[in-house]
Amino acid sequence: SRSLNLAVIPGDGIGQEVVAEGLKVLSAVLPQDVKLETKEYDFGARRYHATGETLTDADLDSLKQHDAILLGAIGDPSVPSGVLERGFLLKLRFAFDHHVNLRPSKLLPGVATPLAGEPQIDFVVVREGTEGPYTGNGGTIRKGTEHEVATEVSVNTAFGVERVVRDAFARAQARPRKKLALIHKNNVLTFAGHLWTNIFNQVAAEFPEVTTEYMHVDAATIYLVTQPERFDVIVTDNLFGDIITDLAAAVSGGIGVAASGNINPSGAFPSMFEPVHGSAPDIAGQGKADPTATVLSVALLLRHLGYDAEATRIEDAVSADLAERTGKPARSTSGIGDALAVRVAG
Amino acid sequence: SRSLNLAVIPGDGIGQEVVAEGLKVLSAVLPQDVKLETKEYDFGARRYHATGETLTDADLDSLKQHDAILLGAIGDPSVPSGVLERGFLLKLRFAFDHHVNLRPSKLLPGVATPLAGEPQIDFVVVREGTEGPYTGNGGTIRKGTEHEVATEVSVNTAFGVERVVRDAFARAQARPRKKLALIHKNNVLTFAGHLWTNIFNQVAAEFPEVTTEYMHVDAATIYLVTQPERFDVIVTDNLFGDIITDLAAAVSGGIGVAASGNINPSGAFPSMFEPVHGSAPDIAGQGKADPTATVLSVALLLRHLGYDAEATRIEDAVSADLAERTGKPARSTSGIGDALAVRVAG
Ligand SMILES: CC(C)[C@H](C(=O)O)[C@@H](O)C(=O)O
Ligand SMILES: CC(C)[C@H](C(=O)O)[C@@H](O)C(=O)O
Repeated sequence: SRSLNLAVIPGDGIGQEVVAEGLKVLSAVLPQDVKLETKEYDFGARRYHATGETLTDADLDSLKQHDAILLGAIGDPSVPSGVLERGFLLKLRFAFDHHVNLRPSKLLPGVATPLAGEPQIDFVVVREGTEGPYTGNGGTIRKGTEHEVATEVSVNTAFGVERVVRDAFARAQARPRKKLALIHKNNVLTFAGHLWTNIFNQVAAEFPEVTTEYMHVDAATIYLVTQPERFDVIVTDNLFGDIITDLAAAVSGGIGVAASGNINPSGAFPSMFEPVHGSAPDIAGQGKADPTATVLSVALLLRHLGYDAEATRIEDAVSADLAERTGKPARSTSGIGDALAVRVAG
Repeated sequence: SRSLNLAVIPGDGIGQEVVAEGLKVLSAVLPQDVKLETKEYDFGARRYHATGETLTDADLDSLKQHDAILLGAIGDPSVPSGVLERGFLLKLRFAFDHHVNLRPSKLLPGVATPLAGEPQIDFVVVREGTEGPYTGNGGTIRKGTEHEVATEVSVNTAFGVERVVRDAFARAQARPRKKLALIHKNNVLTFAGHLWTNIFNQVAAEFPEVTTEYMHVDAATIYLVTQPERFDVIVTDNLFGDIITDLAAAVSGGIGVAASGNINPSGAFPSMFEPVHGSAPDIAGQGKADPTATVLSVALLLRHLGYDAEATRIEDAVSADLAERTGKPARSTSGIGDALAVRVAG
């Protein structure tokens, strides 16, 4: 008999609520012979306030034992900006070398988009997860004085760029349209830009079936709202990926349905799956949060672990559920989770 | 009698065509007693191919003699990415210390937006123009090998941040809604983020009437497509400003109508005004380009030089022209310029 050993990090705000529904749907979809084991971790604002800890070496050792990690949301206004982001979220991505940050955007039938007309949106962003301006390199001198200077260093390596570009080409190759866009700002960030562009062009030679294009990040934001159907797979650096995936989520139905995976394709460390939305403290504890993005993150998790049929069943259930929402009264967090659990089991 | 001594840089692609219309409207709107003198400069791809030069010290000395600069567009696919951007556009911004990059976004009646519904859009972005990741700091080691490392350094100084933040507060104070949003990514870029946030909060204390908010750049892209009416004035760093102003232009009618100013408020060097769009080589020389963004850039130029009434006349003429476009056949570049020249003169 098989087993799925999952680390569960509900986190802050609505994280608790949405993760409960994600697990509900996961239990409902898993084959009978798969033994689901979960261990809950209390990371986030409460732990930080109680102990001052965000993520210790012992925590990392413990997390390492799992097949995968499901996370709700981390972040609370009571914690200074950056403490949990750098001390937990980014620390985990870096410690487990989550270099493929996968963010699919698909506008599903029945889902509202802020765009006019009926745009066709179905693309996936492969965002680099361990380099760029996210490394924490940089510093401050003369802090708090009128002569303060603060720097942020974007670090880009051939090793780091090549592996994520290769991953993106393989994903593009596996999709019907076989298109890949590199998004950067190589006309201004010429050092990093040349590295990204050269490696992109080199790897392209190994994937002759994939059609490629290059786009500056500023132009990409225009296309994302005027011609989103243009995109199939996008590969980009950590910061540009952060920015354009929020925009992509907004145009393809909002962050209520946007899922993501922080993936280490080698399997050396467990990968982590989470909704793109944050902890939304304003609606926490009210049963109002939409757990759909978390449920879709569970689908990404299952596909990553080889449970393709189960992942597809979740995605189909979500599509069917969304298609029937229009005109119906809003349901609670657990109401949506229950409905999805019934659908995937049926 | 007064004089306006203008440096004109038509540049590449459609730059020539749109600048001609900008000058046409400028001549039509200027009071009789103002003597308009223009000197044309041949910067851009042709000069680069002919001489290898982008912008020399002698060029800068000559440009310095003018009251202001009007630019069409610089850039051509025949020139490697980065050469004209770093060698001309950014060199000029840095040499003339154009630290206030002003980009208004207003959705005018009759103008199509990719957003659904009828969004109310009327805000202005104050983008820092001389710091951040645009300084050209950084470098490459082991270029072209599998061990290449490329860095880009974002440089942020209290001096540089404070002056642009102060400018933005003054602009917010002068507008009816008196709102100012700081956009950054202070939860990840903590060194630069703290500098920006602290200075923003300090200067805020001097402008008690201005309502402020802070927003991460990724979240800002969501609001720009879901709640653009939320914004009044935005202040942000050079790179975030580059990205969100293209998105802002897209949602508020497209880059066909987006104007910008590269301003040195001290007047120590002439400020430069240009449409946000590029050289669009695909439609160059066909009389198809819309000169409206250039004409609106002329309005920004006039307002900067104190010709407020004339600036308003141009803006009113553009509004009236846009409002009457729907359903009419497309006009040529000069057709639009002629119509606007008639309106401002009348
Ligand atoms: C919270 C923050 C550290 C994070 C990021 O910038 O990567 C978030 O915005 C995301 O996109 O996952
Ligand atoms: C062409 C490029 C250097 C420039 C920039 O990035 O500032 C452009 O995108 C702009 O916004 O003016």
